[in-house]
Amino acid sequence: MTERDGDGALAGAIEAIGPLDAPAMAEATRRLDQLTKPPGSLGRLEELVVTLAGITGRPDASVARRSIVVMAADHGVARQGVSAYPSAVTPQMVANFVAGGAAINALAAKVGASLTVVDVGVASTIPRVRREPDRGGRLVRRRIRDGTADITEGAAMLRSEARTAIAIGIELVDGIARREGLDILGIGEMGIANTTAASAVVATFSGLPAARVTGRGTGVEDRVLAHKVSVVERALAVNRPDPSDPVGVLAAVGGLEIAALVGLVIGAAARQIPVVLDGFITGAAALAAVALQPAIAPRLIASHRSPEPGHAVVLERLGLRPYLDLEMRLGEGTGAALLIGLLDAACGIRNEMATFAGAGVSGPTGG
Amino acid sequence: MTERDGDGALAGAIEAIGPLDAPAMAEATRRLDQLTKPPGSLGRLEELVVTLAGITGRPDASVARRSIVVMAADHGVARQGVSAYPSAVTPQMVANFVAGGAAINALAAKVGASLTVVDVGVASTIPRVRREPDRGGRLVRRRIRDGTADITEGAAMLRSEARTAIAIGIELVDGIARREGLDILGIGEMGIANTTAASAVVATFSGLPAARVTGRGTGVEDRVLAHKVSVVERALAVNRPDPSDPVGVLAAVGGLEIAALVGLVIGAAARQIPVVLDGFITGAAALAAVALQPAIAPRLIASHRSPEPGHAVVLERLGLRPYLDLEMRLGEGTGAALLIGLLDAACGIRNEMATFAGAGVSGPTGG
Repeated sequence: MTERDGDGALAGAIEAIGPLDAPAMAEATRRLDQLTKPPGSLGRLEELVVTLAGITGRPDASVARRSIVVMAADHGVARQGVSAYPSAVTPQMVANFVAGGAAINALAAKVGASLTVVDVGVASTIPRVRREPDRGGRLVRRRIRDGTADITEGAAMLRSEARTAIAIGIELVDGIARREGLDILGIGEMGIANTTAASAVVATFSGLPAARVTGRGTGVEDRVLAHKVSVVERALAVNRPDPSDPVGVLAAVGGLEIAALVGLVIGAAARQIPVVLDGFITGAAALAAVALQPAIAPRLIASHRSPEPGHAVVLERLGLRPYLDLEMRLGEGTGAALLIGLLDAACGIRNEMATFAGAGVSGPTGG
Repeated sequence: MTERDGDGALAGAIEAIGPLDAPAMAEATRRLDQLTKPPGSLGRLEELVVTLAGITGRPDASVARRSIVVMAADHGVARQGVSAYPSAVTPQMVANFVAGGAAINALAAKVGASLTVVDVGVASTIPRVRREPDRGGRLVRRRIRDGTADITEGAAMLRSEARTAIAIGIELVDGIARREGLDILGIGEMGIANTTAASAVVATFSGLPAARVTGRGTGVEDRVLAHKVSVVERALAVNRPDPSDPVGVLAAVGGLEIAALVGLVIGAAARQIPVVLDGFITGAAALAAVALQPAIAPRLIASHRSPEPGHAVVLERLGLRPYLDLEMRLGEGTGAALLIGLLDAACGIRNEMATFAGAGVSGPTGG
C-alpha cells in the first residue's frame, strides 16, 4: 500500500486486522478433547473448529449465517483468444446466477448459504431474468467500467478504479453483516479470461515465470495454453507490476472482480469473519490481500485444490492446505460452498457430541 | 468361497452381482455436459454422479434414502495390549450411539441418514440408555458370541460363525431396503482392537508383511505399535489364513463386525445399492468381499483416506480413490457420512442446474 492508498476504508480495515486468538483456539482444543473420541481422531475436521475459534475469537464460533459472494467482471485480454468461451458468457452466467440455474446456485442452496452476485465490471448488458425465489442470487450493480483494458497493451484499469473495486468489496461485507448477519463468507468469481489476469497477478507476487503459474483455465487445448503463457508474459513485460505495491499490481494486470475479491477478504478479516476461498482466482486475490496485510493469511480457509498449476503456488505462498481435492475448475464459489458444508459438519460435532464423563465412556488405559 | 459356503443367502447374493451399467453412465455424462458449466469442470463431483448411474443403472439415481450401519464387536486379541483403550469402551460406545452422543450421530444427522448399530459380537453387557429420538441409533441385537477368541492363539471364530455374521449383514440391508427404502448405504464399525484384526486380514489378501499394513489405530505410541506388528505376525503364523478362501480368512484372523461388514457390502451390491466405505476396517471388509466377488469393487465408493498405512494399501487394491483427505481415524462411519454429503451436493448439481440451451448461455467458441 503506497501513501496514495493510505486513507479511507481500505486503510481502516487493514489496521483492524490482528493475529489469531490463541486462547480461543486452546479452549476449542480443550473442549474437543473431552468429546467421546480419541483426541484428534477427527483430524482436519477438528482443525476447522480450532481455526474458526482463532479467527473469530470464540471457541464456539457459529457458522449459521452463511453467505457466498460472486464477483463478476470482464477482461479486455479475452480478445487475445485466451479462453475457450466468448466474453458474452460473463453476463449470461450472471443472469444464470440470478435465475438460479448455475452450479453455485445448487451448492449454495444445499449448504443454506445466501448468494450475492456483484457486477463490478461486466463488459456488456446483463440479460434480464426473473430471480428464482429460493435459489436465485441477489444481483448488486456496482459496475466500475465495462471490463478491463487489454493487459497486453497497458494497464488493466486506473489505480483509482482498483481502489474503488476494493472498497466495493469491503462495503459489501459490511452490508451483509449488518443486514443478514454473517458468520462465514465464501467467495467466488465469474469472468471470461480471468485465469489469464490471475496468472499475471500470481506471477508478480510469487516471482515465478508465467509458464509455472498459467494453466488451462476451464479447458483450453495445448496450443492455446502456449499462447496464453505468451500473453501473460507480454502483460508482465508491458506493465512491469511491482509486487511491493499490491494495489498497483491489481490496476496493472488484475481484474475488477479480482480487486473486489481483495476487498471482500480484507473486509471480512477486519470483522473477524472467516473467509472460505474457492479456486485459483480467489487465491490470486488472497495473495494480493496478504501482500497488503500479512495477518490476513491465517484468517483464510482454503476449500479445494484445483488442477490449475498456479493454484498450488498460491496455496503454498498463503501457507494454506485445502480440504478437498476434487479436480474442480469451475469457480463461482463452488468449492467454497462445499467447504461450508464441511464446516457445518465440524461444528455439529463440536456442538452435539457427548463428553467422556457425560456418556460414561472410559478414556485411554492408564490415561 | 469353498463348497461349504456354496449355498444360502451368500451364494445367492454373490451371483446377483454384475458389472456396472455402461449405458446409464454414458447417459449421465451426456446430461452433465449439457449443464451450464464447461464439460468436466466439476471434476470428481461429476464422477460421483456417473458412478451412481453405473451402480444403480439409473442416470438420475437418487440418494434421498440414506442409511448408515455401524457393526460392533469385540476382539479377544485386545488382551495383548494392542489398543490405547480397554474393551469396555466397545459396549459404552454402542450405548453412546443409541444415546446420540457420538461423532457419527452428529454427522448422520447433518446428512439426514438413519443410523443403525448392530451388536454382532460385543463381549460384555451394553449399558442401558434411552435412545435419543432425533439422532440416536437404532440398536439391533444379533450377538453371535461374546467377542472373538485371541487370534494369537488360534482362529478368531468358527467358520460357521463367520458365515452367520455375513448373513446378518446381508439380511440387514434387505430389512432396511424393505422397511425404509435405501438409495445409499454408508458403513462403519466399532470394536476395540479391530485395527489389529483388520491388519491381519489386509496382510493376508495383499500378501504384504504385517509391518506394512499395521498402524497406530486410534493412537498407540511407537512402543505399542512395534508390539502390535508382532501380534499381527503371530496371528498370521498361528492361523496361516489362505487368501483364496475369504470366509476362512475372516474366521481365522477377522472379526465378527468385519464379517458382518462383508455381508453389508455383498447385500448392497446385490441390490445395486451404492456402498460408501469409511476407513481401514471397512476397507479390510471390502477386500474380503471383493475376494468373494470381484465385480463388487466398482460398486464401492471410497470416502476418505485415513492415516492408517494399511488403508492406502486397501484403496489401491480395490482400485478406489478417496474424495476426502482429512486425516480422520475414528471409524464409526464418520467419513462415509461426510461423503454422503458430497453425493447429495453432486446430485443437487445434476438435478437443479440449467442447460446451456435453457439458460441462453453460449458454449465454447466454435464449439
